[in-house]
Amino acid sequence: MNQDTFTTLEHLGREGLIERIKQLGLDIDDRIIEGIGDDAAVVAGNANLNQLHTTESFLEGVDFDLTFTPLHHLGAKVVMAACSDICAMNALPKWVMINLALPNRVSLEMIDAFYAGVAQACKDLEIRLIGGDLTGSHGALGITVTATGEAAPDKIVTRKGAKNGDAICVTGDLGGALAGLKILLREKKHWESSGEEVMQPDLTDYEYVVRRQLLPVCRHDLIKALEEHQIQPTSMIDLSQGLVKELITLMKASEKACYIYEAAIPVSPLTREVVNELEENLDQYSLYGGEDYELLFTLPEEGVEKFAKQFKDFVVIGKLVEDEPGSVTMQNAEGELLTFNHPGKAGETGANSNN
Amino acid sequence: MNQDTFTTLEHLGREGLIERIKQLGLDIDDRIIEGIGDDAAVVAGNANLNQLHTTESFLEGVDFDLTFTPLHHLGAKVVMAACSDICAMNALPKWVMINLALPNRVSLEMIDAFYAGVAQACKDLEIRLIGGDLTGSHGALGITVTATGEAAPDKIVTRKGAKNGDAICVTGDLGGALAGLKILLREKKHWESSGEEVMQPDLTDYEYVVRRQLLPVCRHDLIKALEEHQIQPTSMIDLSQGLVKELITLMKASEKACYIYEAAIPVSPLTREVVNELEENLDQYSLYGGEDYELLFTLPEEGVEKFAKQFKDFVVIGKLVEDEPGSVTMQNAEGELLTFNHPGKAGETGANSNN
Repeated sequence: MNQDTFTTLEHLGREGLIERIKQLGLDIDDRIIEGIGDDAAVVAGNANLNQLHTTESFLEGVDFDLTFTPLHHLGAKVVMAACSDICAMNALPKWVMINLALPNRVSLEMIDAFYAGVAQACKDLEIRLIGGDLTGSHGALGITVTATGEAAPDKIVTRKGAKNGDAICVTGDLGGALAGLKILLREKKHWESSGEEVMQPDLTDYEYVVRRQLLPVCRHDLIKALEEHQIQPTSMIDLSQGLVKELITLMKASEKACYIYEAAIPVSPLTREVVNELEENLDQYSLYGGEDYELLFTLPEEGVEKFAKQFKDFVVIGKLVEDEPGSVTMQNAEGELLTFNHPGKAGETGANSNN
Repeated sequence: MNQDTFTTLEHLGREGLIERIKQLGLDIDDRIIEGIGDDAAVVAGNANLNQLHTTESFLEGVDFDLTFTPLHHLGAKVVMAACSDICAMNALPKWVMINLALPNRVSLEMIDAFYAGVAQACKDLEIRLIGGDLTGSHGALGITVTATGEAAPDKIVTRKGAKNGDAICVTGDLGGALAGLKILLREKKHWESSGEEVMQPDLTDYEYVVRRQLLPVCRHDLIKALEEHQIQPTSMIDLSQGLVKELITLMKASEKACYIYEAAIPVSPLTREVVNELEENLDQYSLYGGEDYELLFTLPEEGVEKFAKQFKDFVVIGKLVEDEPGSVTMQNAEGELLTFNHPGKAGETGANSNN
């Protein structure tokens, strides 16, 4: 280390920093199938089963805001977010560990609420909590979730395998989590100026989007359906940081390009309503909104036809085409072509992405 | 959650909180061999190999102080600390993941220094960095290390198997890490009153203890020697929180009692010298000092005889006796008997213990 220089991390960015860590050459081993750089790491177990490992940290004030995030929702969300990275490799999560860095103001009742959420998510995902760590904190509440999964070696899907002609598929609908965050932030602002002691907004009209923000569900149902119907995606990634950013990441990793139709991007009418009320541009939500935790995957055309009969909650938004690797071209509702070939806007959600 | 009550966590304590989380019943599964409550969790892999998982968080201002902790030492230490929990199950670590919560004041050069330390520890332990997460922080630097290990099912040693008559063995020497911390804190105080910009103390006379604090080495050499010579400890734990506390934990888990000789507790003459200079009581270091990351284990008498010929860096400090489960009796240098049957003093090291 040259102690005389100080280069800010912004200079390099998060992706640049991950590249730099990769270049340490620390992930070379004949049992490491995927090291740093995909949603989860994959290591060889025996001939029939590989292990997948992922870990994700969440910091109060950066990744979540306790003024409007109930602790039982937070407990469930962090488990879902970490397990989403295992699902994004076409594997099912099995075990989680949770570390908490606890400031004094956290009470036993708050801990109980948090773990009630953890327990609910574990039950929903049929996974187990096997350990963790507790430490003190002078400031923010810190949470780290580590998830381990398993899958047969030939089932694991990375970001690298998309082929020309493949269809680009997305589960669920997009932009809802960001719309929910915007509503919660608006209510917080209102509450802060009201002088009331406790924030108790009436969110009845916004239930869908608020739920998308506070209680996302990782798409293990897709993984189970793919397994059941013997469909193998060629590549996959989870949508924690917004569609455009994750599509570019997928195309770069696969060294391919794609063409998508804006009109095909799934957005719930309930999200659309909220965005209209906020008088904002829907694009900012559907293209750049993070934390939806839906899955983005590629399938050969014949796979789409077969799978669409079995699993209803996905749509095709475009396909892979011959073009500059990493480029994403979108035809918008007016028929105009837009090309994204940079990391795009990161969205405003504080989304905490995969490794 | 009853939102009207606020019970402080101190009321329950760290161990009480872990018990409460255990009682969620979330760790029940026929593949979970050890869930919450030992140094690492153990899950069944195939017939020949189980997986071990552990995770540990370190927070600036709670677990480390950057004014006197070089980042390359910190990088190595956090890896060693996490891997020590895998070794404490008589297994070898294989993979690690590292999460960083980064405040703005952390530069690229600091990150490089940190990962140089990580790389050195990985090289020394013959393990690989396979992933992690990077997030922002408004305050302290936060670090989480997750380690995964492997071992044959019949080799894994927990805290529960100590038998009456077994010898109590300790590797290396104790109290050095706390002595090093005290020297560093003294130098920091001196520096703070000096008004100088950068802390650059001359630590030549304290090299041994400072090294024990800043660059501990987990005892994977013991695990390899036990394997090589086919010696199977009956129970084991790592000394992250001080001898008395860890001995009580081991005895409670095994539902046994022990008798130790203070004169037999290994302390380096270099540690003794520093403690004398500080005009403090050596007991506070040898009995309660944390972060030495040595291993405490129990062996049948015949095992001790056989192993002592092969591996030099351990001593016997006492044995298991018939007494109230969880009790630890010590005969001091004056021949007096002292009984410890409470968690003891936690030491002053901010040691961040296992789950």
